[in-house]
Amino acid sequence: MAKKVLKFGGTSVGTIDRIQHVARIIEKEHLAGNNVVAIVSAMVGKTNELIKLSNEISDTFNKRELDVLLSSGEQVTSALLAGALIKLNINAKSLLNWQIPILTEGEHSNARIINMNVEKINNYLNEKGVVIIPGFQGISKRAEITTIGRGGSDATAVAVAKILNADTCEIYTDVDGVYSTDPNKIPVAKKIDKISYDEMLELSSLGAKVMQSSAVQTAMMYDIPLEVKSTFTERKGTKIFNQENIDYTKSVTGVAYSKDDAKITLIGVEDKPGVAANIFEPLSKAQINVDMVIQNISSDQKTTDVTFTVKRDDVARTKEILREKGEINYKDIIHNDKVAKVSIVGAGMVSTPGITYKMFRGLSDEGINILAISTSEIKLSVIIDEDNTLNAIKKLHTIFDLD
Amino acid sequence: MAKKVLKFGGTSVGTIDRIQHVARIIEKEHLAGNNVVAIVSAMVGKTNELIKLSNEISDTFNKRELDVLLSSGEQVTSALLAGALIKLNINAKSLLNWQIPILTEGEHSNARIINMNVEKINNYLNEKGVVIIPGFQGISKRAEITTIGRGGSDATAVAVAKILNADTCEIYTDVDGVYSTDPNKIPVAKKIDKISYDEMLELSSLGAKVMQSSAVQTAMMYDIPLEVKSTFTERKGTKIFNQENIDYTKSVTGVAYSKDDAKITLIGVEDKPGVAANIFEPLSKAQINVDMVIQNISSDQKTTDVTFTVKRDDVARTKEILREKGEINYKDIIHNDKVAKVSIVGAGMVSTPGITYKMFRGLSDEGINILAISTSEIKLSVIIDEDNTLNAIKKLHTIFDLD
Repeated sequence: MAKKVLKFGGTSVGTIDRIQHVARIIEKEHLAGNNVVAIVSAMVGKTNELIKLSNEISDTFNKRELDVLLSSGEQVTSALLAGALIKLNINAKSLLNWQIPILTEGEHSNARIINMNVEKINNYLNEKGVVIIPGFQGISKRAEITTIGRGGSDATAVAVAKILNADTCEIYTDVDGVYSTDPNKIPVAKKIDKISYDEMLELSSLGAKVMQSSAVQTAMMYDIPLEVKSTFTERKGTKIFNQENIDYTKSVTGVAYSKDDAKITLIGVEDKPGVAANIFEPLSKAQINVDMVIQNISSDQKTTDVTFTVKRDDVARTKEILREKGEINYKDIIHNDKVAKVSIVGAGMVSTPGITYKMFRGLSDEGINILAISTSEIKLSVIIDEDNTLNAIKKLHTIFDLD
Repeated sequence: MAKKVLKFGGTSVGTIDRIQHVARIIEKEHLAGNNVVAIVSAMVGKTNELIKLSNEISDTFNKRELDVLLSSGEQVTSALLAGALIKLNINAKSLLNWQIPILTEGEHSNARIINMNVEKINNYLNEKGVVIIPGFQGISKRAEITTIGRGGSDATAVAVAKILNADTCEIYTDVDGVYSTDPNKIPVAKKIDKISYDEMLELSSLGAKVMQSSAVQTAMMYDIPLEVKSTFTERKGTKIFNQENIDYTKSVTGVAYSKDDAKITLIGVEDKPGVAANIFEPLSKAQINVDMVIQNISSDQKTTDVTFTVKRDDVARTKEILREKGEINYKDIIHNDKVAKVSIVGAGMVSTPGITYKMFRGLSDEGINILAISTSEIKLSVIIDEDNTLNAIKKLHTIFDLD
């Protein structure tokens, strides 16, 4: 008998049929003797629909009221799922965040769960009941409804699993796990059976939209084993846990890509001490995240070209800020947003020599030019022309034995 | 400066445009220096949509969870309206029932508001804020969400007006008041400027669906002046208050009709003491409401025909119950649901002689046969063939000087 937190995403509860299907998944766990707490998202599309309504009123719709508005989506799913379980003769009830309560701190639309009263939940579990909790939200100390950011139901699931001291936290979604690369693009992509928190974080931040990053971070911090699995198949999913529990037979676990980035180049920057600080300080103050930086050695020792990458959404603002700053002397500013970031990720990379060389050689063999590079302990990312994305992923997937 | 409770029905908040229009109505009251508490319904169609979802899961969807489900509708409207007011630079916030709290007693889907904490509301009103409260719901002593029945937002408005000691309670809706009869059917129908609680109750129960009856009853009990008015015009509405405040120049205030009734006749009932009790006791136990009863004098002194009316929905069940009861001897049971109930209502009727005669004569002049009659202090109802409904209303409207 285990205490399990099961989280069901928006697609998994997107229709009444699917909610009934989720009820049967829970029924199975319940009949196997497990204590089940289910965390649910809003029905797919619902949150966007509510946001759209609010935007019709104002682009800057009051955030307190937006939280009141959006939290209704998960409330609806919770009641429907509880009703579906009761229909299957299972004791079940929804507990809204204020009824538990689940306490948060931080600002509206971006709060963090800090605590939860476990008494009501544990009492009901002891009576062989199933508890359904709306994800993505909580209550502030001042008894205001707060939400915890898009995809926040993952964070709710991990927080509830941690505070309830659950044995596992299973993330039911519309894919059957984490793949070595995007299975929609690369048919030979393989499901990964086990992955470390770090690798999962790198893959998530690099575009594998399977789980919300901050939820993985919390799970890592408190060593809560996760499993990502499909609501719609019976296949095993991907287990996510500490690196030390994983036997690495391969140096690279997966290949990720994203098309969120853009490359900006300042041409003919006056090459003197402090120039990099002058460029990046105002960007940092404006909350613009700079990812990769390349500074070419200048031939005349007087000017240099500085290239860096930012999120595509930030390009216009970045150029505006740099144009306004009088302290930086440069000839021209250009940008290229027809680029992609392709990354290899693997906890085994750090102990395997030659990975970097192998990656660069592979791309070179395909005639793909590398525009920028960034590395970390378990990740190696390159910026390339967008048109080369698929070729690059295919090549890297093959040469690192992932096919 | 007055303390006003304004209630906006589902049609009044049915689209974002309409919610913004409601915000401007509130803005006007607010700028005039009034303290405003707004009670809102769910957007029109929303509650039915949620009920439909629950019915797809079960016809007997758990009532606790149904309340959790349905209460989300008014929550959405409250947040949107608060956001629309803030957009107009008015301090406004939604206060959900658990945040206030508004306490109820009684079973799920049919609870009654028994108390409310006024502190948060009054504090916010004192800071020149506008409070938005979702109607139709409350919180039980065990902190469960409860709803108070369809149309319950009216009841919320009246209860909040009473507990807050508000000066007026204004019911904004999609008609511009209470009419002397159905304006959709009878173009000469006239808006009534003032009406007593009793008359309003009779009109409501007789088919004028302007306001929920139990809300009118509560207003009557605590002498809370009501005004029913249109969200969409600037016209004055109908004021509803105590009879003693009204100068009656007309004996009849309005003509109502409904097509909810059916006539059932038991033919050849054995005419002996206790037979009426034997007929109506099992119906009463089955919660079937019998409205009018006519017992014909039997020619042979041995059998009689008993005719009565019930709601159309109850016809099948009524016949079944009476067939099962062995104690009642009768030859046959027949029913007619092609009937309508037409009523004249007026607090002045009791002091005006000849009203009954005038009504019967009027119908007779039109060749309309009266199938059953019932009377009260302020109401006279007849059952007639459905086909004659329009003619009857027109005639009565004219002869009682309502055109």
